[in-house]
Amino acid sequence: MEFTFLGTSAGTPTKARNVTGLALMHGKPRHWYLVDCGEGTQHRLLHTRHSVMKLQAIFITHCHGDHTFGLPGLLTSASMLGRSEPLFLVAPRPVRDFVETALANSDSSLSYELKYIDSEAPDFQWEDEAIAVSATALSHRVSCRAFAFTEKNRERQLLTDRLEADGIEPGPVWGELQRGRDALLEDGRVVRSDTYTTVTRPARKIVVGGDNDTPDLLKTLCTDAQVLIHEATYTQAIADKVGPWPQHSSAPSVARFAENAGLAHLVLTHFSSRYQLSRGAYPNIDEIELEARERYRGQLILARDLATYRLNRDLTLEAVASPPTQDPRTPRAE
Amino acid sequence: MEFTFLGTSAGTPTKARNVTGLALMHGKPRHWYLVDCGEGTQHRLLHTRHSVMKLQAIFITHCHGDHTFGLPGLLTSASMLGRSEPLFLVAPRPVRDFVETALANSDSSLSYELKYIDSEAPDFQWEDEAIAVSATALSHRVSCRAFAFTEKNRERQLLTDRLEADGIEPGPVWGELQRGRDALLEDGRVVRSDTYTTVTRPARKIVVGGDNDTPDLLKTLCTDAQVLIHEATYTQAIADKVGPWPQHSSAPSVARFAENAGLAHLVLTHFSSRYQLSRGAYPNIDEIELEARERYRGQLILARDLATYRLNRDLTLEAVASPPTQDPRTPRAE
Repeated sequence: MEFTFLGTSAGTPTKARNVTGLALMHGKPRHWYLVDCGEGTQHRLLHTRHSVMKLQAIFITHCHGDHTFGLPGLLTSASMLGRSEPLFLVAPRPVRDFVETALANSDSSLSYELKYIDSEAPDFQWEDEAIAVSATALSHRVSCRAFAFTEKNRERQLLTDRLEADGIEPGPVWGELQRGRDALLEDGRVVRSDTYTTVTRPARKIVVGGDNDTPDLLKTLCTDAQVLIHEATYTQAIADKVGPWPQHSSAPSVARFAENAGLAHLVLTHFSSRYQLSRGAYPNIDEIELEARERYRGQLILARDLATYRLNRDLTLEAVASPPTQDPRTPRAE
Repeated sequence: MEFTFLGTSAGTPTKARNVTGLALMHGKPRHWYLVDCGEGTQHRLLHTRHSVMKLQAIFITHCHGDHTFGLPGLLTSASMLGRSEPLFLVAPRPVRDFVETALANSDSSLSYELKYIDSEAPDFQWEDEAIAVSATALSHRVSCRAFAFTEKNRERQLLTDRLEADGIEPGPVWGELQRGRDALLEDGRVVRSDTYTTVTRPARKIVVGGDNDTPDLLKTLCTDAQVLIHEATYTQAIADKVGPWPQHSSAPSVARFAENAGLAHLVLTHFSSRYQLSRGAYPNIDEIELEARERYRGQLILARDLATYRLNRDLTLEAVASPPTQDPRTPRAE
């Protein structure tokens, strides 16, 4: 499982950082998922290898503009490129209303079906062949969700002793069972994959938070997760100065939660645009890192725009170099 | 009068070119106007010296997304920066509806008043202290306007012979008249600036077209204009291949109009994203230039993102180097 940050700034873009967007890759080659879509997300994508043609689903944490204003442009660009496959948009109701009125008022129609899923339905669950997604409510100025992405279809190891003991001979049936499929024997017996195989490693699970002032709300969703990607809009001093009304997290509060939850990897993002990247400039993003490190002993990463990380099968998390990219051509009219 | 291209691509952004946006500067220092606001316009502005705090008015040619989807982000960023001065939005009705629903559905409110002006009102005229704006209807898939920007308050020269003949003594009254203001004499006479001064040069006038397949519609609006900024989405061969339905102009058709209209300067923009900037890459933006040069003998410029041009008082048009820029700080919460 890999993820690429398309934007790491809160509220407004800066010269170096866009507003929120995260590409998550898993499953078939080039298939990917988008979490939040601030303005300029489609521009950032031009500097990655992710194509809107291969996007499987979009998940929106909440309705604020720095997480949603890129939707109309991304959706219509996919249409101009001639996309025909349906696209899922998992979002709260106001985001659906925003998208529908943006399309109607710009005389736009899409070349593909946009399948809306209400992220706030009490029984919300979503899955495709590769991943299962669940959600939990957070605490912010508007209704907001965190999403957990769990891989499906882990590798299975055949329990050969048991297969032989039950008289199931090596052959195509073994292959079926190992791929997780139940099989029919020539003698009419149905054999279950779960009975004759075992999964040898835990499922990879990544939790992506939305805006949130109460990290503890993520406790249940983070069970068995290895990675938490969460906003850390402010250092504690600035959070105290701004006051509680924006309902964001400070670096120490998120770090403390991740430490208590026993999370192996914590990735911070959604930094106030006031935080500077250049060494020596004040207030500096390094202060967010310092404050978090004091309270968290796992692997801590401060997200940078266009940085990509891979959660390996052995549950290590590592940075991945970005391959060169190319502009997609536009075959249809502008 | 100066103008900076914030985007020169049609329909979708490319790595080098954003969708449409044009900053026009005239009047008080740092005051400026925006024509069209495609997604990512606020991002482009971070690489110019133009601040949303000093923006006077926004003019939208038509409702298509590549000319409008940047509005919600730009407007809310100005609010997050604490803007308090009213801002004019001159646009067709669907754009107003788009902006209002985008703000409502993103739980956004603005810290300043947005003053909507219907650009399609039959008697549309707009002016402030520095410029007068008029419009004309174009031919596109949706209702579309071109805007003409004419400078006001040109320097006046005193007609001293006439002043002396009428017994008006040198003094503060002469200063008032030269600034274009009528004055009250001590003897109770009201003297008109127009009577005792003369304007020594033509007014600068820049016409900015929207999307349009019939350049001839600009004939009246281009009267006494020195500069026409117009789309040239396609070369003739691609225009013929795409067919008439997108209702765009080819380079030769715009060039032919500008030549016949006797325009001194023609600036082409809004190039299909298929046109490449790198030498040798096909199809190349150079082909658009070549086709236009064959039919137009004035000063021809192909717009590039972030390029700035100055229309001088002597009506020459020249490129201006861009000064270094800095991120604005965000004092309010994200």
